Amino acid sequence: MRLTIIGCGLIGSKRAAAAAAHEIVAVCDPDPDRRARLAQQTAARPLADWREAIAVDADVVVIATPHDQLAQIALAAVEAGRHVLVEKPAGRRPAEVAPLVAAARQHKRIVKVGFNHRFHPAIVRAKALADEGRIGPLLFIRGRYGHGGRIGYEKEWRFEPEISGGGELIDQGSHLIDLSRWFLGELTLAYGVAPTYFWPGRVDDNCFLALAGAEKRMAWLHASWTEWKNLFAFEIMGRDGKLTIDGLGGSYGVERLTLHRMLPQMGPPETTIWEYPFPDCSFADEFDNFVAAIEGRAPAIGDVNDAYANLTIVQAVYDRASS
Amino acid sequence: MRLTIIGCGLIGSKRAAAAAAHEIVAVCDPDPDRRARLAQQTAARPLADWREAIAVDADVVVIATPHDQLAQIALAAVEAGRHVLVEKPAGRRPAEVAPLVAAARQHKRIVKVGFNHRFHPAIVRAKALADEGRIGPLLFIRGRYGHGGRIGYEKEWRFEPEISGGGELIDQGSHLIDLSRWFLGELTLAYGVAPTYFWPGRVDDNCFLALAGAEKRMAWLHASWTEWKNLFAFEIMGRDGKLTIDGLGGSYGVERLTLHRMLPQMGPPETTIWEYPFPDCSFADEFDNFVAAIEGRAPAIGDVNDAYANLTIVQAVYDRASS
Amino acid sequence: MRLTIIGCGLIGSKRAAAAAAHEIVAVCDPDPDRRARLAQQTAARPLADWREAIAVDADVVVIATPHDQLAQIALAAVEAGRHVLVEKPAGRRPAEVAPLVAAARQHKRIVKVGFNHRFHPAIVRAKALADEGRIGPLLFIRGRYGHGGRIGYEKEWRFEPEISGGGELIDQGSHLIDLSRWFLGELTLAYGVAPTYFWPGRVDDNCFLALAGAEKRMAWLHASWTEWKNLFAFEIMGRDGKLTIDGLGGSYGVERLTLHRMLPQMGPPETTIWEYPFPDCSFADEFDNFVAAIEGRAPAIGDVNDAYANLTIVQAVYDRASS
Amino acid sequence: MRLTIIGCGLIGSKRAAAAAAHEIVAVCDPDPDRRARLAQQTAARPLADWREAIAVDADVVVIATPHDQLAQIALAAVEAGRHVLVEKPAGRRPAEVAPLVAAARQHKRIVKVGFNHRFHPAIVRAKALADEGRIGPLLFIRGRYGHGGRIGYEKEWRFEPEISGGGELIDQGSHLIDLSRWFLGELTLAYGVAPTYFWPGRVDDNCFLALAGAEKRMAWLHASWTEWKNLFAFEIMGRDGKLTIDGLGGSYGVERLTLHRMLPQMGPPETTIWEYPFPDCSFADEFDNFVAAIEGRAPAIGDVNDAYANLTIVQAVYDRASS
Repeated sequence: MRLTIIGCGLIGSKRAAAAAAHEIVAVCDPDPDRRARLAQQTAARPLADWREAIAVDADVVVIATPHDQLAQIALAAVEAGRHVLVEKPAGRRPAEVAPLVAAARQHKRIVKVGFNHRFHPAIVRAKALADEGRIGPLLFIRGRYGHGGRIGYEKEWRFEPEISGGGELIDQGSHLIDLSRWFLGELTLAYGVAPTYFWPGRVDDNCFLALAGAEKRMAWLHASWTEWKNLFAFEIMGRDGKLTIDGLGGSYGVERLTLHRMLPQMGPPETTIWEYPFPDCSFADEFDNFVAAIEGRAPAIGDVNDAYANLTIVQAVYDRASS
Repeated sequence: MRLTIIGCGLIGSKRAAAAAAHEIVAVCDPDPDRRARLAQQTAARPLADWREAIAVDADVVVIATPHDQLAQIALAAVEAGRHVLVEKPAGRRPAEVAPLVAAARQHKRIVKVGFNHRFHPAIVRAKALADEGRIGPLLFIRGRYGHGGRIGYEKEWRFEPEISGGGELIDQGSHLIDLSRWFLGELTLAYGVAPTYFWPGRVDDNCFLALAGAEKRMAWLHASWTEWKNLFAFEIMGRDGKLTIDGLGGSYGVERLTLHRMLPQMGPPETTIWEYPFPDCSFADEFDNFVAAIEGRAPAIGDVNDAYANLTIVQAVYDRASS
Repeated sequence: MRLTIIGCGLIGSKRAAAAAAHEIVAVCDPDPDRRARLAQQTAARPLADWREAIAVDADVVVIATPHDQLAQIALAAVEAGRHVLVEKPAGRRPAEVAPLVAAARQHKRIVKVGFNHRFHPAIVRAKALADEGRIGPLLFIRGRYGHGGRIGYEKEWRFEPEISGGGELIDQGSHLIDLSRWFLGELTLAYGVAPTYFWPGRVDDNCFLALAGAEKRMAWLHASWTEWKNLFAFEIMGRDGKLTIDGLGGSYGVERLTLHRMLPQMGPPETTIWEYPFPDCSFADEFDNFVAAIEGRAPAIGDVNDAYANLTIVQAVYDRASS
Repeated sequence: MRLTIIGCGLIGSKRAAAAAAHEIVAVCDPDPDRRARLAQQTAARPLADWREAIAVDADVVVIATPHDQLAQIALAAVEAGRHVLVEKPAGRRPAEVAPLVAAARQHKRIVKVGFNHRFHPAIVRAKALADEGRIGPLLFIRGRYGHGGRIGYEKEWRFEPEISGGGELIDQGSHLIDLSRWFLGELTLAYGVAPTYFWPGRVDDNCFLALAGAEKRMAWLHASWTEWKNLFAFEIMGRDGKLTIDGLGGSYGVERLTLHRMLPQMGPPETTIWEYPFPDCSFADEFDNFVAAIEGRAPAIGDVNDAYANLTIVQAVYDRASS
């Protein structure tokens, strides 16, 4: 594949590294230092203007800008005939993403969205085990995700709602929503609040979400920027057992999957645990899935339709707050 | 103290053991074997009729019957001039408990309710640390509590709502509600559902609760009879740190309290953990508090007013479900 | 099978429970209360004299007496034509057990020794994985086993060397020796001390053992009655991976097996963990193996030859100390 | 302080960072790139020849070369009037270090040796608790330390005994010896072997050590380059309790100190755990101690006398092997 990367910050650089087996033809960022550094690393052409970047002949455009630009650039890239890998949340509101959904369908382009958590190895295995029926029909999910920010966090772009579209709900909250939808199917907001407890500014630093699905299925989710000890925990309960994912590596702790299986005599369950103390491979595996989807070998795992459904839930929470 | 114990099942026997330093004058149960066994152990007089038991001259009546009798017997005991230790939830609905609240006040009797979780050592220490301000003003609580039942569980009395007043919500859910109120102050139901996923019968086997307090405080609670691996986890977040209680001993795992304190530089917090691998002392310590309250040396920790507020939340969930 | 049980204490009762599918014809103990209680539970004939017990017509004699009687009774039972399950260590010194080795061979009787740790599920699975070559050729073992005694421990029979044959070395130490021999093959004492640190009396309360095998294999073992927190940890290192068993249930913590497998790129290993939070099944599974050995369906796992080799190492340590 | 740093590899750079509050006047390495890089970072003068570096006017010389040069350079530095911080083991054999011991005394210079593990926060706190008598008089230590090497590890300088002085014994083994001596006092080799199991070459990749002290105290140590999962565990048993240090951060897992205290009733102990999920501060704290020792405010913690005693044990193991 021939790639153009728009946005040369931390995530853009990770996306470049994850696509190392491919040719990166252009990199684009308004910041001259950032685009120069990534251009040097990738031997790609540095560009300042994203419109120019889209025009470069490439199979794929990867978009890793702040949230306010994601949908607009992605739409233009699709209309220019590119397949697109756009960072989550793909836009700030569903209305921004709706034209992208339509364009992907019309131009028959893959628009993959960077829900990279679906590619963490503990989550990959959990999904496979759930799909094999190892824990029976699913009943509910409990998800907890959070960190404690850092000194000066409130001065970062995430605290400007015009750019970010919101705070922790749209940040880590949307990963929890995405994973819940992946396991449980379509969900709607039964209850949600997005309070601000600690960080000064105009965005939420916590969100509590109750998402309801078919057959009383429930996703009971909480994400927090006031979680003083970094935490990722995702528990999937089925009729016959339970899958628990803890940790995402680094400061979130070793990534670990636990399978509990109810035994015929009930009582303590059969318990198997897998640990993944390895460097994060989710970006590389996600890029492989993107390529496979382009080549028609596999469906895209986490695409623009997922982003649209995700933002619909996010917007419902923010609407509730402002009503 | 001179005690009468009404209800000679497992909990009644534990209450008797916890009051071993005192004199048990009468024990009462409609089942002849049960009352005979406890009478033998305690050298107390066995009685079949609770009205007769209340009439026995004693300082204190302990009531450990099924839920449908708790309020009625407690009321009669107070009116007979006894101090009362009644098992939680103290009744099936707030309307049942309201007369008991009034009688306790009128007769100036202590009506302690058996919210024994407040006396688990990790929770005792967590409350002391929170009260000392070690984690700053409290922001929210996340609570998870559950077990997986046992073979034939659906045939037990808890599955008859006329006796129990409800399922997992009124069972383990009410402990989570009680602890949340103890830490966060008054709470009202913002959202709650009590679905039945697995166990056949007419009561709920799960409950999801969002309880809201002053200053956007939130208790985000889930209790479950479909938690295949026994679980107790109670996380209390403050502005400056976090307290986490895991386990309650036995099949719930070693009871453990973790204190995370945010440091001035933020990043990973200071972390101290205490473990309590000891036999359950909560019943004994609760009885000591009851005696101290009677003797005017300390307030009762968990009383009939707490039970009333608790049941008000429970009823709001059940009303929601039936509306 | 028709069983006679000699020794009606805690272990004798466990052996009886583990053989519940069989017929217990006689139980024997010099203590009238103990033999009466077990006789009642098993509907067996109570006897005071072990010589009389051996004479009762039975297929099997189970011997759970203090150490000083094990070898003598076992020998007489074999000579009477019984198969024997004798508690470890089967005797106090190798010279005591040598005639039993000879008699078992001569009379073609199974003399199983109660090394029940070989039947703990984490250890069973570890052995199977090692035998399948999952961690490659074995290099060394580290074993740690201990508890902290109890009030008055020094007054128990284990502190009389004439009865027990020694302290912690012959108690928990011999389990470590047995497991090491099972995994690594024949071992000889390279270094060993058995000091007394804490408990008053004439026996060791700790032992440090270096056992050497073929190809520089090493078992590096420590057992302790001054291990204030109960501990069982057994680590088996192979050329390609590692097996770790932690816990034995109850106060030793949940029994758990960890498999670490070195990856081609080295670095952090592949990690899988199995937990066994179940009631102890080792006595029942050991009895099944004993029956299978009698019926010629399987070899006895842990027999009198193992006990002899085990005691040879024990004696070498005690000889060293006294030289 | 004015510093000269000799050896500009990974450890030399860490030492420079740890002394950031001081003035680094010269850096020295035979490799031009390495000395240039560190010179640039520190604004120090780059030198190729260590004799020239020692001659530069400075208060302190830090020596972070391979093992074969440590003693020689340190001796010359002391004779030039410098205080010295030399990496452990300070030499390959005690005979190499003996003149340095004498010179330090004669010239009244501080010769601190880089036993940085003494400055890990869990170990610092363990030492303070032991010194306060929190676990009573010490009985024994168990230490386990190891890693699994890396691809090509056998080609590194550690595998050339002329340079390194030995393999895992002198590498991680000497840290275990040092910590054991720090807690238990003087120790002598009771038993030791240093086999080679896996790595091709002329040095040991494992060592098993039994070190004996006064009153039957024992340090029971094992270090390994075939520990496929990185491990650091150091257990200190006292008459009244136990201190356990697990992890050293990074791939060794979160550094954690556990205090178990025996209770009067014995049984499960009182348990407190402290975790240190922080960046490694041991080099900075060690340098602070070095400065304090120079300024006469504190004794040097881990000095050339400790290195000499340490190497005496190491040599005894190697002598045993070759005899």
